[in-house]
Amino acid sequence: MRTYLDCYPCFLRQALSAARRAGADDAAQHAVVRETLALLHDLPTGATPPEIAHTVHGLVRARLGHADPYRDAKESSTRAALEIYPRLTALVAASPDPLAAAVRVAIAGNIIDFGVSDEVVDLWPTLQRVMAQPFAIDHTAALRTELAAADVVLYLADNAGETVFDRVLIEQLGMPVTYAVKGGPVLNDATREDALAAGLDGCAAVIDNGSDAPGTVRRLCSPEFRDVLDAAPVVIAKGQANYETLSEAGPRVFCLLQVKCPVIARDLDVPVGSIVVRRSEGTDG
Amino acid sequence: MRTYLDCYPCFLRQALSAARRAGADDAAQHAVVRETLALLHDLPTGATPPEIAHTVHGLVRARLGHADPYRDAKESSTRAALEIYPRLTALVAASPDPLAAAVRVAIAGNIIDFGVSDEVVDLWPTLQRVMAQPFAIDHTAALRTELAAADVVLYLADNAGETVFDRVLIEQLGMPVTYAVKGGPVLNDATREDALAAGLDGCAAVIDNGSDAPGTVRRLCSPEFRDVLDAAPVVIAKGQANYETLSEAGPRVFCLLQVKCPVIARDLDVPVGSIVVRRSEGTDG
Repeated sequence: MRTYLDCYPCFLRQALSAARRAGADDAAQHAVVRETLALLHDLPTGATPPEIAHTVHGLVRARLGHADPYRDAKESSTRAALEIYPRLTALVAASPDPLAAAVRVAIAGNIIDFGVSDEVVDLWPTLQRVMAQPFAIDHTAALRTELAAADVVLYLADNAGETVFDRVLIEQLGMPVTYAVKGGPVLNDATREDALAAGLDGCAAVIDNGSDAPGTVRRLCSPEFRDVLDAAPVVIAKGQANYETLSEAGPRVFCLLQVKCPVIARDLDVPVGSIVVRRSEGTDG
Repeated sequence: MRTYLDCYPCFLRQALSAARRAGADDAAQHAVVRETLALLHDLPTGATPPEIAHTVHGLVRARLGHADPYRDAKESSTRAALEIYPRLTALVAASPDPLAAAVRVAIAGNIIDFGVSDEVVDLWPTLQRVMAQPFAIDHTAALRTELAAADVVLYLADNAGETVFDRVLIEQLGMPVTYAVKGGPVLNDATREDALAAGLDGCAAVIDNGSDAPGTVRRLCSPEFRDVLDAAPVVIAKGQANYETLSEAGPRVFCLLQVKCPVIARDLDVPVGSIVVRRSEGTDG
């Protein structure tokens, strides 16, 4: 997916938000905003939004000397998700189609996204909406077929807290899962620490992708992770940033997401608010 | 009101939106966005948001050679508002307190604002909400007192279409009203052409403020308008940009608005979505 100009205001908003979360005073916030304006001005064309976000958030962390501005927000999200975890598993267990229900739960968790908005969303009402909502794009049948033929799943994590919802789906898959988080902090994306806090090590092999970019920017990932990615028979890729970086990554990849911004909505040709299970286009590798 | 850094993403969004409305292709949109980034980067501190918006929209119009990118949107807003005008006047006539009802109607019309969002809002549901909603700040009693003592009102217009809602209030005032629009196009702010299309010349003396900035930026207004402003015993100032420029302009000024963005909400210390009749602070003149 190419970067749309509509993303630029969003990068600016994210830079300011990250600076405030890092405790920057007015002058430091202003300095960060000005540096971000210069960065966006000089941006080469052709970068994906996660690549640009990677640069912007790297700038904020470096300028303010803060390793992880979203640390508190991530911990708070994980706590809130763990609080409803028992209700999530009970809901899936009571469903006539537990796998389908668990897919919806995992997608519901994708509402936790401080890249789109700083608003803290109530999780249970979102879950109830997503459990009942028709899919705008639904390749679940193909996903089921691929899962039945595979011996392992690579599951690409998105945000902290969303991890708990991912856990519900992974526990339902009943097969070995490798759960890949970010190699370093960016936005509220889950790192190893966040995955462990959500209990993912109890149901999956937790690895990191060696990168601190949102989504999965192949050239920024470690060689070890790229090997895992290339060898995986099925890949479940969570969230908008993974869609932005893997929408053309071939038929092994299934993107599970909520459509939370107009740019993604336009790219997918579905309304904002949609839920999506989409098999990626393009050829493999 | 000072400019908050939160406004910067919004200026960038407005520049892109105006460029698209002016028919710019991808390359021209990109050029406008880059010029806006440079402008924001070099901005001196201390300007109000309407002053910055004035510069940004001037840049877009100059770069693209388009005198009025919002022309179609403004005409469409006026048509939509005129369609419900008979229902607006009937509603006020049926009210036990027609002036209070007309004040709410005028505030309801403030939902038409392409500075905040490009979304076209349904007017009647908004009207129903505003008629029933408690005020977050309500200086209507003071406004009534001032109106009773005054021989003329200066009414500072905001957006095209909103003009029709203003007309309902002006017709209810039962006294001479001077209706001041912008001296030239900026955003969807009403110009003389828009005021005439909305029928304001039937109930008020329509003048312009000599400026193509949003709100009322005194130094950019004509000397003639400044004289009118200084002589007016009561000023009704519509919308966020007039609040941004006149919130400290003294007790003759009453700002009527809907709070549509988090920055204004924070400045007023009320929630987004609030309705407000607020007497300005500061000393006169």
